[in-house]
Amino acid sequence: MRTVDIIEAKRDNRPLPPEALTDFVNGVVAGRVPDYQAAAFLMAVYFRGMHTEELVAYAKAMLYSGATLSMPSLKDRYKVDKHSTGGVGDKVSITLAPLVAACGPVIPMISGRGLGHTGGTLDKIEAIEGMNVELSAEDFERCVSDVGYAIAGQTAELVPADKKLYALRDVTGTVPSIPLIAASIMSKKLAAGLDGLVLDVKTGSGAFMKSFDDAATLAQTMIAIGEGMGCRTRACVTSMEQPLGRAVGHSNEMVEAFAALRGEGPKDYLEVCMALGVEMLQLALGVSADAARASLRAAIDSGRALEHCRRWIEAQGGNPRVIDEPYKYMPRAPHERMLEATVSGYLNAFDCAEVGRACGILGGGRATASDKIDHAVGIEVLAKLGDRIDPGTPLFSIAYRDEDKAKQAEALLRQAIIIKDSPCQAPSLLRAQFSKASEEASSPGKSQ
Amino acid sequence: MRTVDIIEAKRDNRPLPPEALTDFVNGVVAGRVPDYQAAAFLMAVYFRGMHTEELVAYAKAMLYSGATLSMPSLKDRYKVDKHSTGGVGDKVSITLAPLVAACGPVIPMISGRGLGHTGGTLDKIEAIEGMNVELSAEDFERCVSDVGYAIAGQTAELVPADKKLYALRDVTGTVPSIPLIAASIMSKKLAAGLDGLVLDVKTGSGAFMKSFDDAATLAQTMIAIGEGMGCRTRACVTSMEQPLGRAVGHSNEMVEAFAALRGEGPKDYLEVCMALGVEMLQLALGVSADAARASLRAAIDSGRALEHCRRWIEAQGGNPRVIDEPYKYMPRAPHERMLEATVSGYLNAFDCAEVGRACGILGGGRATASDKIDHAVGIEVLAKLGDRIDPGTPLFSIAYRDEDKAKQAEALLRQAIIIKDSPCQAPSLLRAQFSKASEEASSPGKSQ
Repeated sequence: MRTVDIIEAKRDNRPLPPEALTDFVNGVVAGRVPDYQAAAFLMAVYFRGMHTEELVAYAKAMLYSGATLSMPSLKDRYKVDKHSTGGVGDKVSITLAPLVAACGPVIPMISGRGLGHTGGTLDKIEAIEGMNVELSAEDFERCVSDVGYAIAGQTAELVPADKKLYALRDVTGTVPSIPLIAASIMSKKLAAGLDGLVLDVKTGSGAFMKSFDDAATLAQTMIAIGEGMGCRTRACVTSMEQPLGRAVGHSNEMVEAFAALRGEGPKDYLEVCMALGVEMLQLALGVSADAARASLRAAIDSGRALEHCRRWIEAQGGNPRVIDEPYKYMPRAPHERMLEATVSGYLNAFDCAEVGRACGILGGGRATASDKIDHAVGIEVLAKLGDRIDPGTPLFSIAYRDEDKAKQAEALLRQAIIIKDSPCQAPSLLRAQFSKASEEASSPGKSQ
Repeated sequence: MRTVDIIEAKRDNRPLPPEALTDFVNGVVAGRVPDYQAAAFLMAVYFRGMHTEELVAYAKAMLYSGATLSMPSLKDRYKVDKHSTGGVGDKVSITLAPLVAACGPVIPMISGRGLGHTGGTLDKIEAIEGMNVELSAEDFERCVSDVGYAIAGQTAELVPADKKLYALRDVTGTVPSIPLIAASIMSKKLAAGLDGLVLDVKTGSGAFMKSFDDAATLAQTMIAIGEGMGCRTRACVTSMEQPLGRAVGHSNEMVEAFAALRGEGPKDYLEVCMALGVEMLQLALGVSADAARASLRAAIDSGRALEHCRRWIEAQGGNPRVIDEPYKYMPRAPHERMLEATVSGYLNAFDCAEVGRACGILGGGRATASDKIDHAVGIEVLAKLGDRIDPGTPLFSIAYRDEDKAKQAEALLRQAIIIKDSPCQAPSLLRAQFSKASEEASSPGKSQ
């Protein structure tokens, strides 16, 4: 098919044969398909969407547009990963990877950096002195093989089609398209040669998918692509109506992630880690949810999860004693101030993205991809949805370097919460779970 | 506004300020807006359309992207033109321009060439030995001033934005968008500095707008743009369910157009010429429809219309005696064959575009813009919708050079008509008339 015919078929909602999408993606990478035709196609997809068969072909073509991680030494190991669509205070990967690795499967985790109001796992890891997240394919494989997991950035050779198409989407108004988002995520994740993948699709005021329906559609779309590409894929839709856990920042989030490996720390954070871990172990070991949960519990109680984390830090260049004396090996902001409530009532709502932006103002965020991160600053979220508030109740604590920035962040944080007279309940964290077998959402959220 | 914000506003159906569209069009011409952003915008317009205010700003920016015809010597004359969206056997301009010019207003007609199944006025004129349709702005103005009208192609300086955007639409699947079609037509037409414009929007199997509703929408969209740009604009939606008149080709269409200036020739063809002429005179002279019709009749009966045509041919380089001895000054195909019916019944339907394609196969059409036209070949349509047909009834006569091509054309023509037992009526030619005052269609078609 000529490119213009591909564009017109999509424009008119006629199904495209897989070969046409493969040709299109290969043409984009090779420069045979000019950017203006690619842009017109992407906008047509924005309006028309893509069918599952189309998406699988499109994501496959992106995946095979560059190198993939073959990792021959791991060919007999079950390779499972988790991907989050991004939120505020989401340090789950740091806890989850050693926790699951301690139970058997290996986790070759390709992760990203923060942008806008969301933090990025790689940035958080770099809070630790000496940690290297730009691993070669060989070092990455060795770390996974030796420790059970590795967390690193995507190398330039992986999925060049996505890099090119994403750059084009960014300037042509075609970023917020669920099928394009899904294909982009899945092509990057599956470049690590996964057997299984669990998706944490965030929904709410701190997430990219504000509505539950969009989050559910994205979850189902990614499952369809993953399963179509031969990777067992499950998804949890989890609430991002308020920051996850207490810590929002970098050093402070690492501290919270380590605490969870001892079974300590905020209950909501542990709950999400456990839920995603259960899904991963079910995929990897074929066990029941209860058995998976018991394994994870045992990994925490025995210290094996923490031990995996220590070995991982050492393997990627840090000092594992950071777990015991965190601020000896991670930067800490020189100043701290407390934000207290001035009214009474109940904490009814967060504008969660604003909490992320407040952290960004302190220096702990990125407006453009080239900005530097200050790992030392951060916010502790001291009151959560549903909490009883009185004048003087601590709401946030702010770790900062610059007085002016702290004031700006404080103003933003004060606007980011709504306190009302009426009592309210914390929202259920786990909003829905999806897998290929079910297709339909099961909604365990209410009973948990 | 940044270009990406313009694209996103259109994508999300938010109204765009006129300045944003002016910037966009100017940016495209200047190369400041890259093609990939222009392509994404055009596809968003395909799905979202444009509001009248947006369209006026967009078409104005296209119009002023290059030179316009100022024609100072005509500043006190009422300048009116007609534009047809294109059909099969549509030689209306050749008859209409001298007919209306003979009644007072001047007609600076910028016309086009044929492509695909439709013929083009400039190609038809070039059937006459020596005729020049590539006039300089000065020669064009002089001809309009001296003769009352001129018919010529667009010079390279006019509306460069449309050239660039059209070329992009052609390869990005964004040609069939009614607002983009309307803006393209109107910006080109109004570059001649018109006071009034009558649009002949064709609908049916030989037209680009197959459905009446699309044709009506296009008509109303063009009226809104024209009136928004200060040009009185009216539109007739006319039937293109069968070729207009008898002749389909070039030399033969010219012969038919000349005959109509004597009041001779096919009734359907004369009817369309008169209807459009009435609209043009109403705009130009502010007279009633009856008075306009009487003027046109008088121009034919007195020979003034034909006389204007003679002077025009001379002014643009041809020999006016072509009107009296057409095939002395126009090429005629060496062979002719007749297609007769083999069954009996009534002519129920034409696939009118196929008749145009049959003419193209003979050599009288263009598949790509660089193809050469054979002006000598053509088709005479001898049976029209509603006609009683018996075995032996002449259906078409074919004027051809090449036996093989004639056979191919014949096969196409046989498939292009449907003869059924049931009697049927010829469709009404004038399907609807639109003007700014009415906005709503009046449907005089049935009673005519």
